[in-house]
Amino acid sequence: MPYVNIRITREGASPEQKAELIGGVTELLQRVLGKNPATTVVTIDEVDTDNWGIGGLPVLDYRAAQAASGPKR
Amino acid sequence: MPYVNIRITREGASPEQKAELIGGVTELLQRVLGKNPATTVVTIDEVDTDNWGIGGLPVLDYRAAQAASGPKR
Amino acid sequence: MPYVNIRITREGASPEQKAELIGGVTELLQRVLGKNPATTVVTIDEVDTDNWGIGGLPVLDYRAAQAASGPKR
Amino acid sequence: MPYVNIRITREGASPEQKAELIGGVTELLQRVLGKNPATTVVTIDEVDTDNWGIGGLPVLDYRAAQAASGPKR
Amino acid sequence: MPYVNIRITREGASPEQKAELIGGVTELLQRVLGKNPATTVVTIDEVDTDNWGIGGLPVLDYRAAQAASGPKR
Amino acid sequence: MPYVNIRITREGASPEQKAELIGGVTELLQRVLGKNPATTVVTIDEVDTDNWGIGGLPVLDYRAAQAASGPKR
Repeated sequence: MPYVNIRITREGASPEQKAELIGGVTELLQRVLGKNPATTVVTIDEVDTDNWGIGGLPVLDYRAAQAASGPKR
Repeated sequence: MPYVNIRITREGASPEQKAELIGGVTELLQRVLGKNPATTVVTIDEVDTDNWGIGGLPVLDYRAAQAASGPKR
Repeated sequence: MPYVNIRITREGASPEQKAELIGGVTELLQRVLGKNPATTVVTIDEVDTDNWGIGGLPVLDYRAAQAASGPKR
Repeated sequence: MPYVNIRITREGASPEQKAELIGGVTELLQRVLGKNPATTVVTIDEVDTDNWGIGGLPVLDYRAAQAASGPKR
Repeated sequence: MPYVNIRITREGASPEQKAELIGGVTELLQRVLGKNPATTVVTIDEVDTDNWGIGGLPVLDYRAAQAASGPKR
Repeated sequence: MPYVNIRITREGASPEQKAELIGGVTELLQRVLGKNPATTVVTIDEVDTDNWGIGGLPVLDYRAAQAASGPKR
């Protein structure tokens, strides 16, 4: 009866992709730990990009800074 | 000063129902553990049904599968 | 199929008290929103007092400050 | 590589204010614990006021009750 | 840069199994959504069985009740 | 009345450092958003290194791989 929370930026994940995440995580927990799929709960939180920070910056600013810093990565 | 997070599918809970959850959980923590209601915080997250999985499926697909599997339960 | 997370300071809640919280929250969600108890998951996190802050202070310091500030409350 | 989740009521925090929270928390973790800003993730959840409870009441009711209870605080 | 939190009961998951969960979830997010593994964070919370409830009961009581209720499931 | 959850690897943060995090985050929320420190709650979760993944690996393996990959960064 695991509970899994997946948090991603809100950038257009489709219902099909979300279903694939739900199925994939549930299968993983069954395969690795023998957890019962029937009682495995998965929630997906889509977080606005303004509300997601990495490297001390909102994520869109972070990506812009990464892109501006050169061709590497 | 407990913190309680209640996660439910977004399916039309009314402000009155949410107020009842907030009051009920706060009262429960006071009664069972003597926690001070003044500093008990409760948050309710309403999660889109596409983003809630159980049994390896998005919840609406899960319910449809349960309904289709016969009269039992 | 709600998911509820209750966070309290680690200060000796007994297994019986935890069971009462689990039963009480589950019953509340059934009564207020008609949620199925069979798929309601409740987790309780007991957090060390060093790791819990309120009013800008670790909770034990906060309580000491409250106690020292006079008889009121 | 810390992960920080900030939950506030949804009451009009601006993108600039959110960016300041993200930068401030990341800087704090670097200063106090030497955590690498590059892998520090911060998410901000803005919760509807109906979904936030304190003192056993939805927050707007709580504030109204506080305001009505006298001039002090 | 997703963040994933996996919550399971504390029942002896090995470091190897946890590593497999971490690798598996990270790979899943890359495959389904194209998320960069380098910034995908996964945390696993192992929750004491006394602190995990399902069906209104602590999980060990729940399992005992399920086992006692007959051979079906 | 914000709620902040800080998750870090369990690697010996002292009570003084935790108090500094609690005070610092509370002050930040007051300064940026005018939040009342009296009702700001901060919790710190220290997660075992086996239970923290980044880049698809448990964090100690990740650091070893980073260190082995050369002097850069």
